[in-house]
Amino acid sequence: MTTTVNALQTTAADAGFERAQIERRDLRPDDVRIDIAYAGICHSDIHTAREEWGTTQFPLTPGHEIVGTVSEVGDQVTDHKVGDIVGVGCFVDSCMECEACKDGEEQYCTNPGVVQTYGQEDYYGEVTKGGYSQQVVVRDHFAVKIPDGMDLAATTPLLCAGITTYHPLKALGVKQGSKVGVIGLGGLGHVAVKIAAAMGADVTVLSRTEAKKEDGLRFGAKEYLATEDESVFTDHAGEFEVILNTVGSGIPLDSFMGLLGRGGVMHNLGAPEDKLSITAFSILPNRRSLSGSMVGGLPETQEMLDFCAEHGITAEIELIDADKVDEYYDKVVEGSVRYRAVIDTASLA
Amino acid sequence: MTTTVNALQTTAADAGFERAQIERRDLRPDDVRIDIAYAGICHSDIHTAREEWGTTQFPLTPGHEIVGTVSEVGDQVTDHKVGDIVGVGCFVDSCMECEACKDGEEQYCTNPGVVQTYGQEDYYGEVTKGGYSQQVVVRDHFAVKIPDGMDLAATTPLLCAGITTYHPLKALGVKQGSKVGVIGLGGLGHVAVKIAAAMGADVTVLSRTEAKKEDGLRFGAKEYLATEDESVFTDHAGEFEVILNTVGSGIPLDSFMGLLGRGGVMHNLGAPEDKLSITAFSILPNRRSLSGSMVGGLPETQEMLDFCAEHGITAEIELIDADKVDEYYDKVVEGSVRYRAVIDTASLA
Repeated sequence: MTTTVNALQTTAADAGFERAQIERRDLRPDDVRIDIAYAGICHSDIHTAREEWGTTQFPLTPGHEIVGTVSEVGDQVTDHKVGDIVGVGCFVDSCMECEACKDGEEQYCTNPGVVQTYGQEDYYGEVTKGGYSQQVVVRDHFAVKIPDGMDLAATTPLLCAGITTYHPLKALGVKQGSKVGVIGLGGLGHVAVKIAAAMGADVTVLSRTEAKKEDGLRFGAKEYLATEDESVFTDHAGEFEVILNTVGSGIPLDSFMGLLGRGGVMHNLGAPEDKLSITAFSILPNRRSLSGSMVGGLPETQEMLDFCAEHGITAEIELIDADKVDEYYDKVVEGSVRYRAVIDTASLA
Repeated sequence: MTTTVNALQTTAADAGFERAQIERRDLRPDDVRIDIAYAGICHSDIHTAREEWGTTQFPLTPGHEIVGTVSEVGDQVTDHKVGDIVGVGCFVDSCMECEACKDGEEQYCTNPGVVQTYGQEDYYGEVTKGGYSQQVVVRDHFAVKIPDGMDLAATTPLLCAGITTYHPLKALGVKQGSKVGVIGLGGLGHVAVKIAAAMGADVTVLSRTEAKKEDGLRFGAKEYLATEDESVFTDHAGEFEVILNTVGSGIPLDSFMGLLGRGGVMHNLGAPEDKLSITAFSILPNRRSLSGSMVGGLPETQEMLDFCAEHGITAEIELIDADKVDEYYDKVVEGSVRYRAVIDTASLA
């Protein structure tokens, strides 16, 4: 038996979204059912829906930034109860036994690997469907608690954008006084600025133009540099300890590498189709690194939410109806959303 | 007044070496004069002599792996005395005042920058000349002590190849049980294997063919993988914490990145003309890094020499006369030297 719920789905790379009914499974003993309130639109939803990252299994219901209310729990569930406000991020199952899972880094599960929240065949042979939907059923471990008092719609993007930026900032040891740059002030970048600033870092936005300067400073940056002015790269050479690159591609990576000081790290969060290319002379001086990461594990996702609650951090969002998703996909691609679109799933009723 | 000494020099990218007489300065108060016994041939000598790294200032006397005996000291020199056996590596001066210099990382001096041992205009307007010579004069801080009992000719390559590999192994936290790969078993690679093994790491040589297997294991590797067999990349995926890439270019970098486990680092020591190119999907999974470094500072060079003396580590060398340098340049490029060529500068007399 399954439960039929309303959702958005797309059936081909160029098809656009339509309303559809999808099935949610009956609860296993360790499952929770979540009535979804909000689902964020992440740029990776677009890459997947438009089949820009290899083959997509259609029909597809994206969405891996999910906030909602627990409406039913399996017999063995002890961590969540009906009525709890919870979130679901980028994955919904992992082996829970490999070294990565034991270390709370389920995103790097090796046995056989993490199950993405949508578009991937899970351990039971079903293709997962994401948050652009009225309801989702996930294994209890993969739901996190939303701290009391947070604006739920604005918290939703933290389930991906929040942990994706919190994880490397923490792994790279960002702390009081760290000199951090953030390339790109979009969905990821604006959250990165807020979190890094709350960690006490001295944050600089590295954006192409001056257009978002006021916002960047309001989000907590101490400085804002428009990189279309190439003098930035000489005037600020060697200044940064960590730069988070939230821009997929199309930036002069070697120039940005030159902004890093000794032991400096350029950390990439985007996944462009083009290769990341640098000259060896960008990393040999100053013992620099080009690194990357994907989201973060469940314990750290909970830690990030608690940190954001403590520091009053949520995303800047545009709350939209389900019928606007195609339109907002285009706006995300052109970079005109301020700063994350979130679907009010009540509009799916 | 200056002192005239015999040396090798080349006058153009395609000229080859000839014997010449060069001038060495009279001692400043903090200088030491070193009668050179041995000078190693580093691949970067070849890149410079053949003008493969941008413009070279000719005439050029290369050589930044130097061992010899102190024959004169300036009035203010207290660290060295006549008769001491000392080494000189890749640089001979720095500002000694910037943060990098104060931290003993003179190689990253910012004010205005380190002075290379050869081919660079120094702070006094003279172009430096390297170790393919009977004598060199350097600022005292830039000479390190060769520990008693070391084979001097075989110690010579440690001044570049030793510190170039020791520095990242230490910076990356390699210790007892660390799983370390070394790409390429040449001048740098064979020293890397010895040093990493002496640090207690579980070392694997990643060489194209089986040809150097016996040597690799003899140098301390526990495993030797011939990467022309592509199954290596699936069979050993995710196994390594640190891989030192001592090969300039021409390797399938994305395939090698896949060998890194969580937090794994691909550390580049070569400086190929081609760009280093990887897909984002090589660094996003497992939070991987592509990093690099250049040699190491003076305090760490001394530490490396002391470490090598303690562990009985020297390079494997072919000792050659000065007249063989052109021939050995070709052999280095074709990869047939076992494993580092060292010039016996007595042959310059």
